[in-house]
Amino acid sequence: MEFSKAGISQPDALLRRYGKMDIPNTGPWNDVISSILSHQSVRSYKPDALPDYTLETLMAAAQSAATSSNMQVWSLVSIKDSKKKIELAKIAGNQKHIEECPLFLVWLADLSRNDRLGTDEGVEMVVSPYVETFLVAAIDAALAAQNAVVAAESIGLSTVYIGAMRNNPKRVGELLELPPQVFPVFGLCVGYAKEDNLGEIKPRLPQPAVAFKEVYGIDNERELRARYDNEMAEFSSRHEIATDTWTKKVINRMGSLTGMNGRETLLGVLSSMGFPLR
Amino acid sequence: MEFSKAGISQPDALLRRYGKMDIPNTGPWNDVISSILSHQSVRSYKPDALPDYTLETLMAAAQSAATSSNMQVWSLVSIKDSKKKIELAKIAGNQKHIEECPLFLVWLADLSRNDRLGTDEGVEMVVSPYVETFLVAAIDAALAAQNAVVAAESIGLSTVYIGAMRNNPKRVGELLELPPQVFPVFGLCVGYAKEDNLGEIKPRLPQPAVAFKEVYGIDNERELRARYDNEMAEFSSRHEIATDTWTKKVINRMGSLTGMNGRETLLGVLSSMGFPLR
Repeated sequence: MEFSKAGISQPDALLRRYGKMDIPNTGPWNDVISSILSHQSVRSYKPDALPDYTLETLMAAAQSAATSSNMQVWSLVSIKDSKKKIELAKIAGNQKHIEECPLFLVWLADLSRNDRLGTDEGVEMVVSPYVETFLVAAIDAALAAQNAVVAAESIGLSTVYIGAMRNNPKRVGELLELPPQVFPVFGLCVGYAKEDNLGEIKPRLPQPAVAFKEVYGIDNERELRARYDNEMAEFSSRHEIATDTWTKKVINRMGSLTGMNGRETLLGVLSSMGFPLR
Repeated sequence: MEFSKAGISQPDALLRRYGKMDIPNTGPWNDVISSILSHQSVRSYKPDALPDYTLETLMAAAQSAATSSNMQVWSLVSIKDSKKKIELAKIAGNQKHIEECPLFLVWLADLSRNDRLGTDEGVEMVVSPYVETFLVAAIDAALAAQNAVVAAESIGLSTVYIGAMRNNPKRVGELLELPPQVFPVFGLCVGYAKEDNLGEIKPRLPQPAVAFKEVYGIDNERELRARYDNEMAEFSSRHEIATDTWTKKVINRMGSLTGMNGRETLLGVLSSMGFPLR
């Protein structure tokens, strides 16, 4: 069964996203914006098949995103094979939703296609080894993926990004037969959510803590964070075993290398996959 | 005057995006997907003001995007000040649309907010210096920005990403008073397009050249590129002074360091701005 995300009212959507203390001024509104604001990452999927040619639609949305100088330095591998999804779930620290979702997408920073073009034409792609060019490829992949996410959610599908492809990008590369200069930026589960997983929308930081006018500024940051800590503590008390503030969660995740799950070696891994990041 | 992007038919939208030789199979469709497929980057804007609280709506859309572990390691500086836009246009190699658009957004990879949180709590954010963490911040910023782009286009606004903020990120940082560990990933012009700039949608590579099933593959890549070269040569003959294939454009952009406009120094610049990319 599909559920519609487009029907939520503006006051409701803003309340759910920011909590009652930090509802922003309400500007333009329509079903597209309503659908975007209703996003939730979903980690439990029904086995139900997707509509025919869903992948082609998501790709058309993805390719409609801007791409730096139209270089199109990203690619996608779509995975339905169960054995491969099991292997990818293991790499991601046993995230079972990777096995469960009917369609798993791996988004790739891909300089190899244009490198092959250069080889055919006898031209070396001298910009490829630079950190700038890797960054462009990762950003292009992210813009494309986000368009696919918005399109998927608009037709009643759910998604969750899987950054943990970067726990072991070399192994992902072997499974997907990636050539050099192709890097798995992240994965994306796509499918129909089990309904009990469609609960509450996760609140975000108040807008004044993130969006600044004319210059960067941190006035009131502590006060804004304190309010958000309260919101997130309440949210986590309803959804998680432990009741944690956002401050506590940030410290757990960023204050120790444990949370990186091996990703602290990424610089060397990137170099070995054809991205020396000069 | 607004124009609606949601009314375009599926066959029309796919034809315009891929050309008649490479129309993909047609899957699900609705107004959200229609709006996404109608994206065009626009480089000429009317001076018309935006609807009240447009920025707040775009921010709500942006903050509704997924963010890795809810760390929210991105920020935004919005710019309306003419003098600042003139300076930013200069940094971007005199892109006049930055001066022209009523709202210019600079999207920031921002590890500094969580670093301040750590300082308050007496905890060092040891993950910050790693390339992985910078990548997360840049991806988070890109996902957020793309949500804002989709929301903006859905209400009749146009946009164009400005990667050229990275021509001189240090100078952008001075203008926007960015603290260490804050990096301008890209800019975004937002405004009403001058109507003569709303011409044709730019075709992209055929889907089979970009999207692979189960494993990466380059079968037929040359044939697909040849077809796309023809599409793009026709497109450029209608819109540009010179008629160039995509192959020619890729070589111009990636086969020489000239096209980097100083961005070949980004590794050192990032380090000096608080991102050592360990």
